[in-house]
Amino acid sequence: MSIIDTINTPADLKKLPIEKLPEVCDAVRQTIIDDCAMNPGHVGSSLGVVELTVALHYVLDLPYDNLIWDVGHQSYAHKILTGRREQFKNKRKKGGISGFPKIEESEYDSFGTGHSSTSISAALGMAEAARLCGEEKRQSVAVIGDGSMTGGMAFEALNNAGTSKANMLIILNDNNMAIDPNVGGLKDYLLDITASQAYNRIKHRVWNSMNKKSKLMLRMRGSIKKFYNGLKALFLKHSNLFESFGVRYFGPTDGHDVIRLVKILQRLTKLNGPKLLHCITIKGYGFEAAEEKPTLWHSPSRFDPANGELLPEPENESLKFQDVFGETILELAQQNKKIVGITPAMPTGCSLNIMMKAMPERCYDVGIAEQHAVTFSAGLAAKGMIPFCNIYSSFMQRAYDQIIHDIALQKLNVVLCQDRGGLVGSDGATHHGVFDLAILQHIPNMTIAAPMNESELRNMMYTAQLPDMGPFSIRYPRGYGFMGKEWRTPFQQLEIGKARCVSEGKKIAVLTLGTTGHDVTKIIDKFNPGDIAHYDMRFLKPVDTETLHSVFKNFNTIITVEDGTITGGLAGCVATFKSEHNYSARIISLGVPDKFISHGTVSELKAECKFDRTAIENAIRKAID
Amino acid sequence: MSIIDTINTPADLKKLPIEKLPEVCDAVRQTIIDDCAMNPGHVGSSLGVVELTVALHYVLDLPYDNLIWDVGHQSYAHKILTGRREQFKNKRKKGGISGFPKIEESEYDSFGTGHSSTSISAALGMAEAARLCGEEKRQSVAVIGDGSMTGGMAFEALNNAGTSKANMLIILNDNNMAIDPNVGGLKDYLLDITASQAYNRIKHRVWNSMNKKSKLMLRMRGSIKKFYNGLKALFLKHSNLFESFGVRYFGPTDGHDVIRLVKILQRLTKLNGPKLLHCITIKGYGFEAAEEKPTLWHSPSRFDPANGELLPEPENESLKFQDVFGETILELAQQNKKIVGITPAMPTGCSLNIMMKAMPERCYDVGIAEQHAVTFSAGLAAKGMIPFCNIYSSFMQRAYDQIIHDIALQKLNVVLCQDRGGLVGSDGATHHGVFDLAILQHIPNMTIAAPMNESELRNMMYTAQLPDMGPFSIRYPRGYGFMGKEWRTPFQQLEIGKARCVSEGKKIAVLTLGTTGHDVTKIIDKFNPGDIAHYDMRFLKPVDTETLHSVFKNFNTIITVEDGTITGGLAGCVATFKSEHNYSARIISLGVPDKFISHGTVSELKAECKFDRTAIENAIRKAID
Repeated sequence: MSIIDTINTPADLKKLPIEKLPEVCDAVRQTIIDDCAMNPGHVGSSLGVVELTVALHYVLDLPYDNLIWDVGHQSYAHKILTGRREQFKNKRKKGGISGFPKIEESEYDSFGTGHSSTSISAALGMAEAARLCGEEKRQSVAVIGDGSMTGGMAFEALNNAGTSKANMLIILNDNNMAIDPNVGGLKDYLLDITASQAYNRIKHRVWNSMNKKSKLMLRMRGSIKKFYNGLKALFLKHSNLFESFGVRYFGPTDGHDVIRLVKILQRLTKLNGPKLLHCITIKGYGFEAAEEKPTLWHSPSRFDPANGELLPEPENESLKFQDVFGETILELAQQNKKIVGITPAMPTGCSLNIMMKAMPERCYDVGIAEQHAVTFSAGLAAKGMIPFCNIYSSFMQRAYDQIIHDIALQKLNVVLCQDRGGLVGSDGATHHGVFDLAILQHIPNMTIAAPMNESELRNMMYTAQLPDMGPFSIRYPRGYGFMGKEWRTPFQQLEIGKARCVSEGKKIAVLTLGTTGHDVTKIIDKFNPGDIAHYDMRFLKPVDTETLHSVFKNFNTIITVEDGTITGGLAGCVATFKSEHNYSARIISLGVPDKFISHGTVSELKAECKFDRTAIENAIRKAID
Repeated sequence: MSIIDTINTPADLKKLPIEKLPEVCDAVRQTIIDDCAMNPGHVGSSLGVVELTVALHYVLDLPYDNLIWDVGHQSYAHKILTGRREQFKNKRKKGGISGFPKIEESEYDSFGTGHSSTSISAALGMAEAARLCGEEKRQSVAVIGDGSMTGGMAFEALNNAGTSKANMLIILNDNNMAIDPNVGGLKDYLLDITASQAYNRIKHRVWNSMNKKSKLMLRMRGSIKKFYNGLKALFLKHSNLFESFGVRYFGPTDGHDVIRLVKILQRLTKLNGPKLLHCITIKGYGFEAAEEKPTLWHSPSRFDPANGELLPEPENESLKFQDVFGETILELAQQNKKIVGITPAMPTGCSLNIMMKAMPERCYDVGIAEQHAVTFSAGLAAKGMIPFCNIYSSFMQRAYDQIIHDIALQKLNVVLCQDRGGLVGSDGATHHGVFDLAILQHIPNMTIAAPMNESELRNMMYTAQLPDMGPFSIRYPRGYGFMGKEWRTPFQQLEIGKARCVSEGKKIAVLTLGTTGHDVTKIIDKFNPGDIAHYDMRFLKPVDTETLHSVFKNFNTIITVEDGTITGGLAGCVATFKSEHNYSARIISLGVPDKFISHGTVSELKAECKFDRTAIENAIRKAID
């Protein structure tokens, strides 16, 4: 029986003597490894905070106290220690627990997360609520990574926290990584204050007591040496960033020394006001494979828990849409020297790393900073460059104002590549990219496109970089295409606002936008030839009014299918068109209904939303009958 | 003949000997004062940067170089010096020049602004474009206020800039003000580095040469004394925030010493890489009334240019919607101790200052930080408070992701008060609040309301703070209500999702949302009694389906009127409803068309968009005939 079997709630943990905590950490770590080996999840970030999590639950008093995990990928140890060890086996599966903290899932999840950089704001709100209610002893703790710290709202929150009297602790979980290695001035700064002996002499009490033989110290030896070379001596002139905001700074400390962490936290929770503890951690700590390749192990596929060997994934002869984007932007950039690539901290996820490798000087990883990514792209475009700004659809919501204010209003030729458009699967509600079509539609000057397959993605990218195209959005889903090895089709200019008739038919018209069109092609053979007309709309804006007029004139029933909210999007567009022109055809709209969709596989979720292949087939059949 | 008459472009300015620049400054300042006295605009911020503007144009080479004015309120001197002195008389008027920089208005406007904190991102994009094109000598300069520096995307940009090799200069225009006095830790930090003699000893070259008799020095004497008291000695331990990001810091320097500014800028533009010059300025500098009351003089009404006495505004016996909000939240907060008020830097503009004065401990001015404001509110709500988060509609676009991710998904009872909903007038395209209805509509769990008048605003606010209301948005316009002194009606709970029949009729149904309903009441008497049925929808979501069914069953023609985009909003909602239920009534939708609307008076712009009273009347008449 493992020690972990004795811990069902934090109260059980708190009963243990402090010297038992390393054993708890080992057991929690092993639980994460064993489980994720079969049931994939976010391994690296969760392994990196095992000691921190155990220490926090040992010192804090949840759910009375508040604990917020920024982004939330790293909450596995937290879930295991708060009554969800059994359910952990079904994490991220339909009906199972979420991969992220969720208020409705557990009273120990103080605040739901998923998107980056929200934790300080939320913790400050909770701390102020405690203050207003006279509960000054209630702790509100935000755990935020150095990657998330580059997100602007974290600084907005720091600025506000600096003048607050509320009782809040920020734990900066500094592993020098986002999903890819962290970037920017802040990263250099954090490395500097960590590596600088002079700085540490001031902060000696915490530093000197660090475990000198820890992997961390070994790893930092290089940096310290580098410092002694005097190369970075200049940096010492600037002291502490966080104290500039009025937030007291403590650290850096070894985030893998659980006993020391407990002692530090016990002291810090007795101090009033806003404060920050800088913890140095290693992503994937305690599992060699994950430590070695932290980007790969951010969210690996199934693996052998004994040695970290990744198990072979089911073969798919097609390329992922991400890689089609990555290969295609490189191909286009080789032909058009105005093209540059921008990603907010997702070079591997969106495959811009393909171009980065070939043309580093024309690619920008700007950090977790969607707002800046968009306006930075606008600045590049204002001076004649053609930026392809690739952001996941659900994160693009962060830059909504900048799309309107800096790109669309100024008609700048920025190509917004919205990766992860539509339902994304196991990451769930926070990550589904289902709003983008609806929210871009009413922005003037926008061209909004969605490819049905790899070839169309290539042609849309090709068309978007032609002269005077203005603001151009292309959204495509997470995952594999359908064209096998034949994806690299020759570039072809698409006529803006022009749909394509995929198959002719007389009884019913099916209008699709994006890859739902591919689903329709897969079921159309089940009907009598010549019954179903299928149009791949290609563009939501400008919408192909000629095709719409023809469809409304020739059909009594029109079915729209899209991987996005039914309110707004293609459904809204076609309904409005019908109303404007007083057509009478009946419209059946398939897509994401007006509720938040939880996690599961993409096909389970599409079935839940009733626009998987079966549901489309049923809808057509019902309409014909 | 004034010296200003000899300057039509920056080239003319550059021909003058440096010692003539103070005379140019005086002339530019007088032009701004004389003009704004009759033709109101943003006086304070523009007066504060006269010297900086003259120095920048003397040193830079526009339009070859890039110059970006953050927010852009302060660009009047820039406009006057770049060929728009004559047009300046028609600034902010329909057909006249904009109050903000605009690419399409002048080749000297490198980038359009309006919303805060975009300038560093845009300048960095331009600087990178110059670098990629081998134009290393091209300057890209961002002028950003200390208020705008609190916006998160400015930090995202700093983080990115810190590792860039591009040639960029950030000028921090530090006047310790947003529209209201600046807030937060950053403000204290900037004051500290400015006031600290010890710090200045290190930076002595710049500092010692400041004009010792300047108003600035006189003003700072108090701060310096305070410092010597040792009260702030602790702050000296933390040194330079900006250098933490890898951006070289220079200053602080006197932003009103034009000759010295020229010399500093000449030196700084020769340094490669990203750098920041910290300029201390006084908002309203050189015009006593404006210096004394900077918040009032941010955007004053007409005044006597001789003495700054404000001319009487046309009387309006009604209260502004802003003040109705401000008085009502105080009234509600006196009854419900869970209510707190949040504003991102607009306490005067949104009239939260009324509650702030009475209950300072329950109000939060969080700085220019819309994202944080929303998630901070979510944190408060998660712990049982009822936050009224008041943000201007067009700025709420900044917090779109946070509304989805932190409020709606978690069903938290945050009341989003969207001030400046609809067309706002002379601030133009960047400030019109026309997208909010369309973008909130497809967010699950939201209640979306818009009052027709003051009383309804009060009742919506009252209803929103009742238990278990969940996410609740209330949008209302800039400016005066219609109810005269009778606005403080007793609170009444509104049924969620229930419309109100304002007048019965048989021929045509007019559905309105928000204050367009009031316009309809003003023209309905021009028609035969009993012809026009008028429904004040009150809620866009949940929409009153009962009323819609009844309207579609009883009328052949339905007119919708809203102060927002026709795509999406009420128009989209009614069209979708019609389509879903296969109704056939013709719908005529009035509202903002699919283009960006420029500046002008609200009534001119409503006329342009064809939903002013005349246009509504015409639409009804045409439909009846």
